[in-house]
Amino acid sequence: MIGIVPAQGKSRKPFRGGSAVERNPVVVVSFPADNEARTLLGRELGEFSRLVFLKDLIDPEKRKAALESADVLLSFILGREISSPELLFLKKLRLFQSLLAGVDALPFPFMPKQAVLCSNAGAWAEPLAEHALCMALALGKNLLPLHAKLARGEFDNSRESLWFRRASAAILGFGGIGKATARLFRCLGMEIRAVNTTGRTLEPVDWIGTLEQLEEAVRDANVVVLSLPLTRRTRGLIGKRELEWMREDAILVNVARGALVQEEALYVHLKANPSFRAGIDTWWVEPATHGEFRLQYPFFELENFLGSPHNSNLVKGIFPVALKAAVDNVCRFLAGEPPLGVVDPADYVED
Amino acid sequence: MIGIVPAQGKSRKPFRGGSAVERNPVVVVSFPADNEARTLLGRELGEFSRLVFLKDLIDPEKRKAALESADVLLSFILGREISSPELLFLKKLRLFQSLLAGVDALPFPFMPKQAVLCSNAGAWAEPLAEHALCMALALGKNLLPLHAKLARGEFDNSRESLWFRRASAAILGFGGIGKATARLFRCLGMEIRAVNTTGRTLEPVDWIGTLEQLEEAVRDANVVVLSLPLTRRTRGLIGKRELEWMREDAILVNVARGALVQEEALYVHLKANPSFRAGIDTWWVEPATHGEFRLQYPFFELENFLGSPHNSNLVKGIFPVALKAAVDNVCRFLAGEPPLGVVDPADYVED
Repeated sequence: MIGIVPAQGKSRKPFRGGSAVERNPVVVVSFPADNEARTLLGRELGEFSRLVFLKDLIDPEKRKAALESADVLLSFILGREISSPELLFLKKLRLFQSLLAGVDALPFPFMPKQAVLCSNAGAWAEPLAEHALCMALALGKNLLPLHAKLARGEFDNSRESLWFRRASAAILGFGGIGKATARLFRCLGMEIRAVNTTGRTLEPVDWIGTLEQLEEAVRDANVVVLSLPLTRRTRGLIGKRELEWMREDAILVNVARGALVQEEALYVHLKANPSFRAGIDTWWVEPATHGEFRLQYPFFELENFLGSPHNSNLVKGIFPVALKAAVDNVCRFLAGEPPLGVVDPADYVED
Repeated sequence: MIGIVPAQGKSRKPFRGGSAVERNPVVVVSFPADNEARTLLGRELGEFSRLVFLKDLIDPEKRKAALESADVLLSFILGREISSPELLFLKKLRLFQSLLAGVDALPFPFMPKQAVLCSNAGAWAEPLAEHALCMALALGKNLLPLHAKLARGEFDNSRESLWFRRASAAILGFGGIGKATARLFRCLGMEIRAVNTTGRTLEPVDWIGTLEQLEEAVRDANVVVLSLPLTRRTRGLIGKRELEWMREDAILVNVARGALVQEEALYVHLKANPSFRAGIDTWWVEPATHGEFRLQYPFFELENFLGSPHNSNLVKGIFPVALKAAVDNVCRFLAGEPPLGVVDPADYVED
């Protein structure tokens, strides 16, 4: 459908001052979209763009033609959707929009140079914050080891657990996820120490600084949450030295990306410090990025370790919300407005 | 020390309008008080009352004399502190003040008839609310079964978990614990359905009713929290019928008293409905009340069951806070003011 369509309701449409900025751009959807997703995409984008669902195209030539014609690519887990050689077909692409908040797994050398790359930062923030809170509470209340003891008939209420109301949290990475996590922690009465790239925020925090001040940020925190993107700068951020900066009984929760933490250093630290606890939702080697789940150290033998299968984002009802956020960003871009979550490949690619 | 002592700072002292209402009452402390507790008791009560620490009296005659002279008894787990026959010595007792919020385990037939019996309702509310939230989140995110699968190398992120922001909670019992729990749940964005004895509250809730409306309260709730006292009326409150009123995938959390729930009915319901989940912190037969931990059904074989060893109140730093609340109530009583948490034995004793 071509032509000027008035914006309906509150939905953001790519028209400014009544005239279309873009007419009939090709939006290729590479993730497997179910009926609900197709309805949403049709409603939000169908009026003024040509939607192509890549999964519907069996013929390789048609896939190639679709990719060659794409102005916008909307992707979820790119590695499962388009092979790296196929990415070279994206010669016309102007916007790559991910449904994911973290785009570290993109094959940057193969991504079209001329395209703007956007993450879906913030779209999954609320469920991730719930998951971070869940893991922190479970570890602070020693839920798993005490459940296991009870299952053996051992009623152990000798060990005091953490009173979160009197505790503090260091939130490393203060974007959508970090802020949402801080809001929940504040509700419990916790002190919030935040780290971001500017050392400034409009959110109510008790302390804020940058990664330069990491030691000061984490030193006294009862809970340390990782909610930052995995970039060249943050890869391996938490190693032996940083773990030793933390309280001996600190709780480390990683809902961001596994490789922010040095695997060996974490295992050694957990093993040597039984009162230190770690909750990991994102892994070094996991199915979505590596095709398998693999650990180099037997973390699950440790009582002070809690793992979840990268399901922090997997809550009932979130997908349409996250998709809508990504689609809104596509509309923003097509309307000539600056899109959100623009990613600089230089932050991700090693020199 | 006898005489008029001016109130110091913010601490509530049993003097009204400058004159002592009580002079030198005997306050017997029957729980094992450590140095911190003794310091607090001395500071708050020592100036105008005679403090007797029962644990210091080895000689049975001295114990008897102390109990016979007691105006006030401050107790924690009474069954471990004073035998039922010894309770008959409490002929002068005017106030029995428990450190516990739930006084259902008191040997009511042996309690001195002339004394006012007070619970410490609300004093433990915050940690209990944290624990209820912790259990609800852990169950809603399927933390234990997914951790166990990961430990076996199985990366199962096929199952959607509960998005608490879009969920609702029924809070049965809307005293200190219920309100504190509701406050935390509201922070997550949950809808709150509360049940209390009046069907009215000043707290912000989405719905409130009485136990007469229990079905309406729990019918659509994703989470059902038990935070009511165990009385004649509430014993066995949750049975087969009530469990069937709930959503098939509801999460039941009991941080109040085990016997509010019918043990067999809960086991049968959990076994028959794998998507129904229950978190239990307080048990039918547990050490503090029965000298042992015993289950009639193998709850711990079920994946949809989570247990903790009645440690919801056992957080670092809570004891002085709970003791202070109890001591404040003693002062209130000795000052001639109406004490809080007055218990009617008729609510507890079977006809």
